[in-house]
Amino acid sequence: MQERLRRQLDFALEIDKEKNIFRQTHLSGHGRNENDAEHAWHMAIMAYLLREYANETVDISKVMLMCLIHDIVEIEAGDTYAYDEEGLKTQKAREDAAKEKIFSLLPEDQKRELVALFDEFEAYETAEAKFAHTMDNLQPLLLNHSNDGGDWREHQVTAEQVYSRQGKSRLGSETLFEVIDDILQENIRRGNLRTSDGTGADKC
Amino acid sequence: MQERLRRQLDFALEIDKEKNIFRQTHLSGHGRNENDAEHAWHMAIMAYLLREYANETVDISKVMLMCLIHDIVEIEAGDTYAYDEEGLKTQKAREDAAKEKIFSLLPEDQKRELVALFDEFEAYETAEAKFAHTMDNLQPLLLNHSNDGGDWREHQVTAEQVYSRQGKSRLGSETLFEVIDDILQENIRRGNLRTSDGTGADKC
Repeated sequence: MQERLRRQLDFALEIDKEKNIFRQTHLSGHGRNENDAEHAWHMAIMAYLLREYANETVDISKVMLMCLIHDIVEIEAGDTYAYDEEGLKTQKAREDAAKEKIFSLLPEDQKRELVALFDEFEAYETAEAKFAHTMDNLQPLLLNHSNDGGDWREHQVTAEQVYSRQGKSRLGSETLFEVIDDILQENIRRGNLRTSDGTGADKC
Repeated sequence: MQERLRRQLDFALEIDKEKNIFRQTHLSGHGRNENDAEHAWHMAIMAYLLREYANETVDISKVMLMCLIHDIVEIEAGDTYAYDEEGLKTQKAREDAAKEKIFSLLPEDQKRELVALFDEFEAYETAEAKFAHTMDNLQPLLLNHSNDGGDWREHQVTAEQVYSRQGKSRLGSETLFEVIDDILQENIRRGNLRTSDGTGADKC
């Protein structure tokens, strides 16, 4: 087998490990924790079906590929929960080292391409990165909402924390942010999200 | 929320169930059984990285979307193991009913589009369908090979059965079929695949 193909297949086998990286989100129907590969699959399909709501015209193929690969570094770096403040401090350094290690399995041209795509997602600047991030936020929100906000309750997440992250979803799609906002308000009313002014869980 | 968006989000939540459809393939490292969503994610990335080996030029975005959605019907119809001869007899009828039910959650235009893409995959005629099928065959083969053919041994699958399915991989990629052939020959030598002429497992 030629060296190029061998490297591509080595990478393909390596990323199988992403299926063992579990997230804090639970599957609908009060299911088990979701893993990164499933999450990425779900985001990519949602991106395709919801692309009409992107604020700017997006190259949807690029968004989908970005969704599919955006968590590969977690094979080495592990998942960092969106509201884990200690973990977030070291996240970038851990993920940079992982990025170099994992993508180096690929032929050089494909390594460069996927690293650039990963970096573009992280930089949060292009229309594609913004829309992919909206999917990264909306997908677990839908699952968590279907489970009556169980993930937020488990981690005692506050509305402020969630808005700090989810608020950026509007950069990718104002329309989908309206959906997100409605869901968050409903979860505050139900007491699934605590608020510092005493509304929400504190009242329950 | 407008009706169109509500339907799209209902579909997005429904397909979460694909993560609970488990296959006969095991993850690398002698891991647990793989589910359909992970399998689809893996296929889509492999399709992108290996597209240079397709026999014909393919619309890779179409191939990737085809990979991502090709097993959604199994949410209703269940997974049918590639070498389950009884299950294969009823597979089409079960999957047709499932297709109608699940894709009908979507707005009509998106239902038509995804059903057409699913049907194109099943028909095995276009360059995109053939290459997507090559991924559908190669992906579990890589995992199974990494586990020393454990899935074949567990089900006492014969080399003839595997070649009957994997032989069609050459319709999508002659180059990748060479890889597949090498892997199968190695597994016959190791006794992981039985052959009717007494080579392979019968000798071990």
